[in-house]
Amino acid sequence: MNVDGLKGKTIAFAASGGLDSCTITRWLTDAGVNVVCVTADLAQPDEKDLQAVGKRMLACGASEWVLVPLRDAIAEAGLEAIRAQACYEGPYWNTTAIARHVTVRGVIGEMRKRGIKILSHGATGRGNDQVRFQLVTNMLAPEFEVYAPWRDEAFLQRFGGRSQMIDFCQERKLPITATKQAPYSTDANLLGLTHEAGRLESLHTPAFFINPGMGCLPAEAPDKPEEVSVRFVKGRPVAINGTQVDGLQALLTANRLGGRHAVGIATHVVENRFVGVKSRGVYEAPGMELLGTCYGLLLQLILDRRAREFFDQVALFLARQIYQGYWFDLASQMAGQAVARVADLVSGTVTVSLYKGGISFVSAAEVPHTLYSEENASMEAVGSFNHADSEGFLRVLAVSARALAAAGQIPPK
Amino acid sequence: MNVDGLKGKTIAFAASGGLDSCTITRWLTDAGVNVVCVTADLAQPDEKDLQAVGKRMLACGASEWVLVPLRDAIAEAGLEAIRAQACYEGPYWNTTAIARHVTVRGVIGEMRKRGIKILSHGATGRGNDQVRFQLVTNMLAPEFEVYAPWRDEAFLQRFGGRSQMIDFCQERKLPITATKQAPYSTDANLLGLTHEAGRLESLHTPAFFINPGMGCLPAEAPDKPEEVSVRFVKGRPVAINGTQVDGLQALLTANRLGGRHAVGIATHVVENRFVGVKSRGVYEAPGMELLGTCYGLLLQLILDRRAREFFDQVALFLARQIYQGYWFDLASQMAGQAVARVADLVSGTVTVSLYKGGISFVSAAEVPHTLYSEENASMEAVGSFNHADSEGFLRVLAVSARALAAAGQIPPK
Amino acid sequence: MNVDGLKGKTIAFAASGGLDSCTITRWLTDAGVNVVCVTADLAQPDEKDLQAVGKRMLACGASEWVLVPLRDAIAEAGLEAIRAQACYEGPYWNTTAIARHVTVRGVIGEMRKRGIKILSHGATGRGNDQVRFQLVTNMLAPEFEVYAPWRDEAFLQRFGGRSQMIDFCQERKLPITATKQAPYSTDANLLGLTHEAGRLESLHTPAFFINPGMGCLPAEAPDKPEEVSVRFVKGRPVAINGTQVDGLQALLTANRLGGRHAVGIATHVVENRFVGVKSRGVYEAPGMELLGTCYGLLLQLILDRRAREFFDQVALFLARQIYQGYWFDLASQMAGQAVARVADLVSGTVTVSLYKGGISFVSAAEVPHTLYSEENASMEAVGSFNHADSEGFLRVLAVSARALAAAGQIPPK
Amino acid sequence: MNVDGLKGKTIAFAASGGLDSCTITRWLTDAGVNVVCVTADLAQPDEKDLQAVGKRMLACGASEWVLVPLRDAIAEAGLEAIRAQACYEGPYWNTTAIARHVTVRGVIGEMRKRGIKILSHGATGRGNDQVRFQLVTNMLAPEFEVYAPWRDEAFLQRFGGRSQMIDFCQERKLPITATKQAPYSTDANLLGLTHEAGRLESLHTPAFFINPGMGCLPAEAPDKPEEVSVRFVKGRPVAINGTQVDGLQALLTANRLGGRHAVGIATHVVENRFVGVKSRGVYEAPGMELLGTCYGLLLQLILDRRAREFFDQVALFLARQIYQGYWFDLASQMAGQAVARVADLVSGTVTVSLYKGGISFVSAAEVPHTLYSEENASMEAVGSFNHADSEGFLRVLAVSARALAAAGQIPPK
Repeated sequence: MNVDGLKGKTIAFAASGGLDSCTITRWLTDAGVNVVCVTADLAQPDEKDLQAVGKRMLACGASEWVLVPLRDAIAEAGLEAIRAQACYEGPYWNTTAIARHVTVRGVIGEMRKRGIKILSHGATGRGNDQVRFQLVTNMLAPEFEVYAPWRDEAFLQRFGGRSQMIDFCQERKLPITATKQAPYSTDANLLGLTHEAGRLESLHTPAFFINPGMGCLPAEAPDKPEEVSVRFVKGRPVAINGTQVDGLQALLTANRLGGRHAVGIATHVVENRFVGVKSRGVYEAPGMELLGTCYGLLLQLILDRRAREFFDQVALFLARQIYQGYWFDLASQMAGQAVARVADLVSGTVTVSLYKGGISFVSAAEVPHTLYSEENASMEAVGSFNHADSEGFLRVLAVSARALAAAGQIPPK
Repeated sequence: MNVDGLKGKTIAFAASGGLDSCTITRWLTDAGVNVVCVTADLAQPDEKDLQAVGKRMLACGASEWVLVPLRDAIAEAGLEAIRAQACYEGPYWNTTAIARHVTVRGVIGEMRKRGIKILSHGATGRGNDQVRFQLVTNMLAPEFEVYAPWRDEAFLQRFGGRSQMIDFCQERKLPITATKQAPYSTDANLLGLTHEAGRLESLHTPAFFINPGMGCLPAEAPDKPEEVSVRFVKGRPVAINGTQVDGLQALLTANRLGGRHAVGIATHVVENRFVGVKSRGVYEAPGMELLGTCYGLLLQLILDRRAREFFDQVALFLARQIYQGYWFDLASQMAGQAVARVADLVSGTVTVSLYKGGISFVSAAEVPHTLYSEENASMEAVGSFNHADSEGFLRVLAVSARALAAAGQIPPK
Repeated sequence: MNVDGLKGKTIAFAASGGLDSCTITRWLTDAGVNVVCVTADLAQPDEKDLQAVGKRMLACGASEWVLVPLRDAIAEAGLEAIRAQACYEGPYWNTTAIARHVTVRGVIGEMRKRGIKILSHGATGRGNDQVRFQLVTNMLAPEFEVYAPWRDEAFLQRFGGRSQMIDFCQERKLPITATKQAPYSTDANLLGLTHEAGRLESLHTPAFFINPGMGCLPAEAPDKPEEVSVRFVKGRPVAINGTQVDGLQALLTANRLGGRHAVGIATHVVENRFVGVKSRGVYEAPGMELLGTCYGLLLQLILDRRAREFFDQVALFLARQIYQGYWFDLASQMAGQAVARVADLVSGTVTVSLYKGGISFVSAAEVPHTLYSEENASMEAVGSFNHADSEGFLRVLAVSARALAAAGQIPPK
Repeated sequence: MNVDGLKGKTIAFAASGGLDSCTITRWLTDAGVNVVCVTADLAQPDEKDLQAVGKRMLACGASEWVLVPLRDAIAEAGLEAIRAQACYEGPYWNTTAIARHVTVRGVIGEMRKRGIKILSHGATGRGNDQVRFQLVTNMLAPEFEVYAPWRDEAFLQRFGGRSQMIDFCQERKLPITATKQAPYSTDANLLGLTHEAGRLESLHTPAFFINPGMGCLPAEAPDKPEEVSVRFVKGRPVAINGTQVDGLQALLTANRLGGRHAVGIATHVVENRFVGVKSRGVYEAPGMELLGTCYGLLLQLILDRRAREFFDQVALFLARQIYQGYWFDLASQMAGQAVARVADLVSGTVTVSLYKGGISFVSAAEVPHTLYSEENASMEAVGSFNHADSEGFLRVLAVSARALAAAGQIPPK
């Protein structure tokens, strides 16, 4: 699909309002395409005035600007990922990946209302976002087409990178806010903020120069710890520090509390993109990290050895699925069902202490499905556990252990 | 196996030198058993004077005291676990579990020299250590027997817990150091120190009262970050801050540097013991955490998506195996071979910054097997990655995504 | 728990009606225990006259005999295992394991009606069944106790094995049917029949001497193939050869059709028992194999690559869980939810041909959720797949493949 | 990459000698490309006279024809897959996938000798083989380019499918052997033969019309079973029926014996291609199935529960890796190391009986690392297993099972 084929047609363009959005909207309009810009309200912390985005897109040539209200949707999706403990390749809470799923689903809804069947986006041809735009669209609206200027030779030949776009916009007096000197680029939503590209691409450069958008670096955090309690009911946070919250409020509050103490800043992420290249980023996700850690602490009380083993597999699997844009496929549905069964049992109040980026356990209370028993944990002779039974237990284990030795399966040490 | 059957026989007792060691040694001696006490030198940070342990054990009735030099062995085992990134159920570096494997192997060597065939230990009948003592002995010396007083009815009826043992020892004027008021018990070796039991058993009690033995709590750490560089060659740390180190020195140095900055203190561990009950502990492992994190950062550069996926499975599996006492069985050997193939590729220098319990990435250099390429990572049009190729890539992915939709496998959202 | 502690109490004994049942019932009665024998009607193919079992148990001293109707329950459980494709260590459909879960659940219900709180069974101290009896009871009725004569020293000293039991029964003129010459022992229910022990214990002995109870050996099967069609709706077999069936009828019919053609006889099973020893068995499960294979053929049409990968993990996991007696725990519930999501999509008619133990695919029809598309499968230029797109697809894959080589991760061949 | 860019250059073309090979060679030659045809000797059962292939390719315009002797290489690769039990999505032994890896590696060697840097092949743009050609080349010779006519628009516009190629060849009087009526296409090598496409694409068509190339269908097999014994030493078959064999002879002999009895014909394979579409095939692999089954029987004796669990994961993983063309990447190297550790232990003689497509276990002997012990397997009171120990074993398991119930994790049944 290329721009020539779009002349005279109406497309929806998923516009964040940044440099790419402005450039692409104008360039398409110049080429005779009717562009409806759709912006998702994801409670993005870096864009307080979404109406200004609308004005900007209309100034760039959009025939219409649509704001899709997705604050609750992104919150719910974030909580779902927390329930799955779905961190990708270590500390990344998949914040951008989740947002893409939510956004595309929301944009498709607006397109259907208007009879538009071509979705366009400004994601580049090397990243993960293009994959998520594509797959989510193909799964939820298989009759739609996706047009990505960054994979269109005509666009690529016109725009090699950032500076040519800035020149293009400035020549046309478009109301862009970007400057050529930006040290890196960011993407943000309720769940998190990512810093990528630019100076961050060199592994010789520490990330301390970045400017956190949802909190601060540990060295800038208060010198006094702060305690936070989170109450969950059936897998949902329902109160923070005793105040009732809905899903959106839970994340907003957790972002504020966590961000203040530098919680959830991952400065060392090098990860495998779906397209097979490695990239480096600095990720902020204070609320996900705070709520996710509290949730994880409850799981430590609730999951027995077997459930834990299976859960860990599911979490790793689902994290990859979400990252790669497959959150809606059958495999994710299967994994999601498994996660939901556990979530049903996750109720209780966890109190933690936040300090300089760290989260320490303080206490847990009212956890009806806990397996933790002070009596059974004790090494002393109390509770339902009879020390002497272990003799038989171990003699049974001994039979197979000795059999390994007798069979010559243990090499000499 | 019970004490009656041991009368007149010679056994080896794995003695740490604590209250259990003293009590059991004397109780067995009184029962007519000839007890050879064997103590492992694991560079335990809480026991500087191992000769004093020897004197104590002889005073308690041991016919001989043997010190097994296992400092290098425990260091090598720790590095192996780091290479496998083998953390159990989250943040626990398996420090005690590793030590048991190393100790039992060492003790068996001493027993063979002396023709002793019964190994005794003071691990309780509810914990994991009894399992590790048993399994390692059965695998490495299947002809040996294991005798555990804490699973012997005669012993259990005599000693219900800590206070009776203290009374027993005091009545006999044995040189114990324990007091009845100990708020919890600890176990330590080069790799880490665990705090368990006592006041820690209540989940309503924050762990901040514990007295760290290998470092400090975050709030007590210096207000200035400190940079540390670690150089690995083929999976081994060979230099820290530019100074050559062998395995043992690497862990000793990392313990000192990490401990100073409160690195590797896990205050919130509730875990599933092998015997099926949950226990709570506070774990310190400053050196493992520091070296293990640096190693992990190199893995982020080296493992591609598929290798990462497989590695994650192996790491989870091996962590369970080590925790449960199965480090020497065939399954662990298989997993170990997979880990070793990766370790071969892990060379490079990583610099991190330590601050208030946190470890931040500073830079990486000289990583010959890195897959990270600034050019390919870039979203700009450089490197070997052609943006337009992604069009075909995504069109291929689209076929299967649309097929899912066409087959009715995506429920309406 | 031992027999002395049971004197004067009422217990429920899970009685199959065989030699063990008779011996134990009488031995307990002699010891002053009030024994209520409970027999499960599992549509066992080797026991046509269950009323006769009742008479036998009463003759052996039981104070009451209860028949629990579990034909539908065992059928439903079998279908659940088919949906999970839960075969243990290769070809074993877990037929006995499933039956234990169903039986214990049924027996517990009868016990609750009568206020009995001690469940006894005749499973030996080396097998898997004792584990299943124990775990299911502990999970579903944690307040109950389990008493197993084969783990009671008093019983073990009285009865070393089969011959002593036969002598005991003959001396007391109990109506046993067993003879000392039995070449092996069997266990049977609607889902399958297992042959174990006796002459089968030697790996030098081919299994061809066994006498199949649910069908025949391949060499005895008809010389003409027979076609069978099975229609599934949402994971359930609803018609066989065009005749409507419920769950129980599905298995009965499939047993008959499959058994006639030697389908589902596994002669070469050596497996790992939960207690850590290996055992050998010959397993018959004609209906499970026939229905399970047809179900698997539908899965081949429905599961995409990712769903398949996840499903395979779940199947392996659930098979181990069922085998080990953990079908009711949280981990199994999680896995079961994942399986159920898939089952919802499994509708369609599969026709296969049965011949000499083999099952060959004939055709599939009316599979609404199939991903198989003749057009897309074709190598010719038809369907939604554009050959040229693969060029971009492969160029994207090439970037990471070459990066592996450039990083020195591919050893020279 | 397209044909215009190749004019005047020398390329290597991997030629099987079939219709595609002839067409492409001539079409490229006509376009001014210097084509060196390279044919792999993989002991392919459907092509007895490889010299005739050479003559044909030269007649089609090739400037040179090279035969690469890869019989031993394919045999060794097949044995490696057997050791990994690497069957893809059920019964497919990856025979074509393995051959592609071996072929490309062999062809690259010949190209290096001649200084050729462009590899061309006739695999279509929808299949898996193009992926394997690409990935193996990129990993083993990252400096090479791959040219695939079936992804070149110029070629695709000239040739829509089979009939146009036949017309093209007939017009030019090229010595093709293909006819327009071929009911399906085949691919064969020492390890197996696949039937795909054509009439097989309809799931309404039973596969019984195919003409097996390496054996027969079950109904055509002898009415008398035949016993076969295979002796393995350290994971390698070293003797069949008492006659010493090397790797190649092992597979040739096993193909002959297995094929005669219809062993290893999988008629019902619908599988997920890497590119995301499903395809259907009929696969023959008599020797792989026979040797692989015998190997699996030894594994049943050797792998304990934990090793088995890990092995099953590795086998599934490696099967996917091989299928998808990743046999040489780091992930496969890791998995391969795990498999090799097990292979070291796999020695012994297995005897099986072949009959009408089925393989039945007869006996096993001289298996030094077996864990199977007649004494321990026995339910009677012999061997090292003390029945009474199970009481303690189960009481320990009971603690966690009851805890699940007490925590409300077991829903009422």
